[in-house]
Amino acid sequence: MAVKSETVDALVNLAKRRGLVYPSSEIYGGLRSAWDYGPLGVELKSNIKRQWWRAMVQQREDVVGLDSSVILARQVWEASGHVEAFVDPLTECMSCHKRFRSDHLLEAFQERHGRVPVEGLAEIPCPNCGAKRSFTESRMFNALLRTYIGPVQDESGLTYLRPETAQGIFINFLNVQQSSRKKVPFGIGQVGKSFRNEITPGNFIFRTREFEQMEMEFFCVPGTDEDWHQHWIDTRLEWYLDLGINRDHLRLYEHPQDKLAHYAKRTVDIEYRYNFTGLEWGELEGIANRTDYDLKTHAEHSGADLSFFDQESGNRYIPYVVEPAAGVDRAMLTFLLDAYTVDEAPNNKGKLEKRTYLRLDPRLAPVKAAVLPLSRNSELSPRARELAQRLRARWNVEFDDAGAIGRRYRRQDEIGTPFCITVDFDTLEDESVTVRERDSMSQVRVSLDKVETYLIERLPGC
Amino acid sequence: MAVKSETVDALVNLAKRRGLVYPSSEIYGGLRSAWDYGPLGVELKSNIKRQWWRAMVQQREDVVGLDSSVILARQVWEASGHVEAFVDPLTECMSCHKRFRSDHLLEAFQERHGRVPVEGLAEIPCPNCGAKRSFTESRMFNALLRTYIGPVQDESGLTYLRPETAQGIFINFLNVQQSSRKKVPFGIGQVGKSFRNEITPGNFIFRTREFEQMEMEFFCVPGTDEDWHQHWIDTRLEWYLDLGINRDHLRLYEHPQDKLAHYAKRTVDIEYRYNFTGLEWGELEGIANRTDYDLKTHAEHSGADLSFFDQESGNRYIPYVVEPAAGVDRAMLTFLLDAYTVDEAPNNKGKLEKRTYLRLDPRLAPVKAAVLPLSRNSELSPRARELAQRLRARWNVEFDDAGAIGRRYRRQDEIGTPFCITVDFDTLEDESVTVRERDSMSQVRVSLDKVETYLIERLPGC
Repeated sequence: MAVKSETVDALVNLAKRRGLVYPSSEIYGGLRSAWDYGPLGVELKSNIKRQWWRAMVQQREDVVGLDSSVILARQVWEASGHVEAFVDPLTECMSCHKRFRSDHLLEAFQERHGRVPVEGLAEIPCPNCGAKRSFTESRMFNALLRTYIGPVQDESGLTYLRPETAQGIFINFLNVQQSSRKKVPFGIGQVGKSFRNEITPGNFIFRTREFEQMEMEFFCVPGTDEDWHQHWIDTRLEWYLDLGINRDHLRLYEHPQDKLAHYAKRTVDIEYRYNFTGLEWGELEGIANRTDYDLKTHAEHSGADLSFFDQESGNRYIPYVVEPAAGVDRAMLTFLLDAYTVDEAPNNKGKLEKRTYLRLDPRLAPVKAAVLPLSRNSELSPRARELAQRLRARWNVEFDDAGAIGRRYRRQDEIGTPFCITVDFDTLEDESVTVRERDSMSQVRVSLDKVETYLIERLPGC
Repeated sequence: MAVKSETVDALVNLAKRRGLVYPSSEIYGGLRSAWDYGPLGVELKSNIKRQWWRAMVQQREDVVGLDSSVILARQVWEASGHVEAFVDPLTECMSCHKRFRSDHLLEAFQERHGRVPVEGLAEIPCPNCGAKRSFTESRMFNALLRTYIGPVQDESGLTYLRPETAQGIFINFLNVQQSSRKKVPFGIGQVGKSFRNEITPGNFIFRTREFEQMEMEFFCVPGTDEDWHQHWIDTRLEWYLDLGINRDHLRLYEHPQDKLAHYAKRTVDIEYRYNFTGLEWGELEGIANRTDYDLKTHAEHSGADLSFFDQESGNRYIPYVVEPAAGVDRAMLTFLLDAYTVDEAPNNKGKLEKRTYLRLDPRLAPVKAAVLPLSRNSELSPRARELAQRLRARWNVEFDDAGAIGRRYRRQDEIGTPFCITVDFDTLEDESVTVRERDSMSQVRVSLDKVETYLIERLPGC
C-alpha cells in the first residue's frame, strides 16, 4: 500500500502543531527556502544523524569522520565544475510570471501521460495559472549561493556556500589519510549543511534551499569500484529497512547511461514512493560511482599529489570513489510519512475512535518515554515528575500532567513515543507503574525500581 | 599555573598531525576564514555538543531544543538591529595595507602598557610591519555575510547568513511555546553554525568567520531576571569545571555599564586564560540579561503578539530573556589547551622520556579506548580486532597494530584516549587483557568477558 497523498498535508499540520517542523521566519510572512525544526524535530533529526554516524562511521573500522567548513576557497568550486556546470534549466510563465525548472515540468508531464511531450514545454500548461503555450525558452541558472568574505566587499572576496559536503572530503583526502593512517579501501563520512538556490523549493522538507546532508566518500582500488558500488547500494537499502521503512515503498532507480552526471560511471538512487502531486517516486538517496574524477581534478587544479601509494603491492594510483549521499531532511520526511498511521482504537468508554500515531523505530522516536500521573494531583504529580527526571539521565523523557489521561496518550501516540508510564493511586501502595506500549497499546505493571531495566531491554541502541 | 603561550603552537601542530583540526582548503593555499575538523576533531566537537545538549536541554524539564535555519528572512536582521548596528571599527596600515580592528589594537595596547594610548591609534605601531603613525582613520564595517536567494539574482533576494543563532529562537518563541505547552519560565536551546565577516580571524579556532554556537534563551518573568541571570552564570561556570577545566584558568568578567550592548542590562563573560600574544584573558562564553528587548522588537516589526499570558496570575507580559551563549570551536580550543600536558615517563628501557598527553575528561575524549595487539601477529591481531569491533557497539574505539607498543601508547596519550587495552601472548592462555589508564599509566589485568563492565564503570556518561 502506498503512502496516501493526503498524508503529506496531515503530516505538515501535525508537524507544526506538535513542534516537529515550523515554517521558517513565519512571523515575517515566511521564507520558502527552509523550515525550522522544533523541540521534537531537532531530536528526531539528531537521532537520524546519530544512527547514520553509528552505522556508517563509528562501527566501521574502514570509515572515519570529517567536518569541513561550509565556506571553502573559491578554487574548490571552480575545479569541481560547480561554477560552470551546476546549472538547472529555468523557464518562466509569461502569464503569471512564476518560475519553474523545465526538467521538472517535462518529467511530471511524462509521468502523468506516459509519454514525452512532443512539442516540449509548449505542450504543457502552467501548473500555477493554467495558461497554455506560456513558457519562455529555458535558460541555464546556476544554483550556487554566493557570498563575499574579507574586509573588502568586492569580487576578490567572492565565494560560494557549499552545494554538497563531498568536495570538502576530496580536498582533505591527503590530510585525513595521513593523520588517520588508513589504507585504501577506506571511507570518509560527513554530516552537515549544504545550500542550493533551488528554483522551486517545495513538497514540505523534500526540497529546500538550505538542507543537511549525510555523505560518505569511499576510496577504493580501481577495478574494485563496481563491487564496492554494489556493496554500498545493498548496505544503504538495508539501513532504511532496518530502521523500519516498508520495502514496498522503496525501489532502486538506475540512472540511464546517457543521463549520468559528468563525473559518474554509474548511479543508482534509492527512491521512496512519496505520492506528491506530479511526483509518485522521488529520490531518497543517491549512490554514485564517481571514479577518480574528483581527486584527479583537484590534483590538477591544486598541484597536490592526491595519489595513494600501496606499500604492499608497490602500486601508486588515484583511488576510485563510491559515494552514498543522503539528505537528513528528506530522510526525516520519509521516516515520518512511513510511520504515519491512522487506525481505530477504543476510547475510555470502549467506543472506537480514530487514533493517529507514528510507528517510528524507537531509535528514531524523539521522546523515548512519557511519564504521566493519572491526574494532576499533589501526591501523583511529584512522584511522576521525580521518575521522569530519573529517566532523563539516559533518555529524552517527557513529563505531562495536563488534561485527561486518554488525551495525553493520544498526544504521545502522535509524536511516536514508544512507552507511556502512568503513575496512579495504586503506585502509592504497590510502588509500581503501568507501562503502555505505543503500537499494541498493551499495558503491563512494572515495579518502580525496575523501570530502567524494563526500558533498557526494549530500547536497544537508544 | 597559566597555559604557556608556546602550548598553542604545539597544539596546532598536534591537531593537524593527529587529525583533530586542519587548515581549511589547504591544498588551494588555505582560507583564513575557517578550519576543518578531522576524524578526531569531529568526535571531540560532537562530544562537547552532546554534553551541552544533555546538561542544557535534555536533562532539564524547563528547557526544550530548536534547530532554526541559517538563512532567515531579511526582516529578521533589520528588526534585530544587525543590518544597522552589527559593525566593527576597521583601520588599515597605510604602509603594509593590512587591516585591523581598531578596538582590538587599543585593547592590546592597554593590556601591554597598563594604560590607554593617549593619542589613540596614532600611538600604536603596526603589529604586522612595525610602521609608526600608519593607521587610517577608523570606519565602521558590517560583519554580516550577504547572500542572494531566489531565481532572480538582484537585491530583492538579498539576505544574510545568521551571525548568531539567537534570533532564530526569538522569532520561533510563539511556535515553540504553543507546541511544547511550556510555561514561563522556560528556555529554548540551539546548536548550530553562524557566520561573521571578521576583519582579523586568528588564534587558531578562537576567532573564525564560520563557527558553531551553543546558545540558550531563557524566558522569565520580568523582575526575576536578575536572579535567573545569576543562576545561569553559576550553572555555566560549573559546567566547565565539571568537564575538567582548571578553576585558576577561568575568571568572570563583568561588562562595564557604559560598554554594554544596546540590548543588555548586564553581561558577564566567562573568560579563559589563553595567553595569546596580546590577549591574556579571552571570552569563552557570554551570559547576558537581554531584557525584553528582542521579543519587543520582533513584535513591533512583525506585528505578531509575542507576549505570554500567565493563566495562574492572570498577567500578560513580554518575558525577559537571559542568554548563556557559548562557542563550540572556542570551547574545544579551551578543553584542548587545558588538557594539554607534558611530563616525563619511563620508556620500555626504564629511561625517562618526554610524554605529551591530553588529560581530557573521558566524556569528551574522541576515542574512549584503543585495542592494541602487543605486536602485529596472525594470532594477536585478529583477537584484538575482534575485541575492538565488539566494543564499537558502545563507544568510539580504535584498533592499532602499527609499530612498537610504546609508540602506540604515546599516540593514544596524545589524543587523550582514557584506556589502552593490550592483547598479548598471555591473552591466548588466560583470556585476559591488560588495561592501561592514560593519566596514571597504571595497568591492570582484566578478563576478556569483563572488559565492557570494566569500561562502563569508568566511562560514566559516555
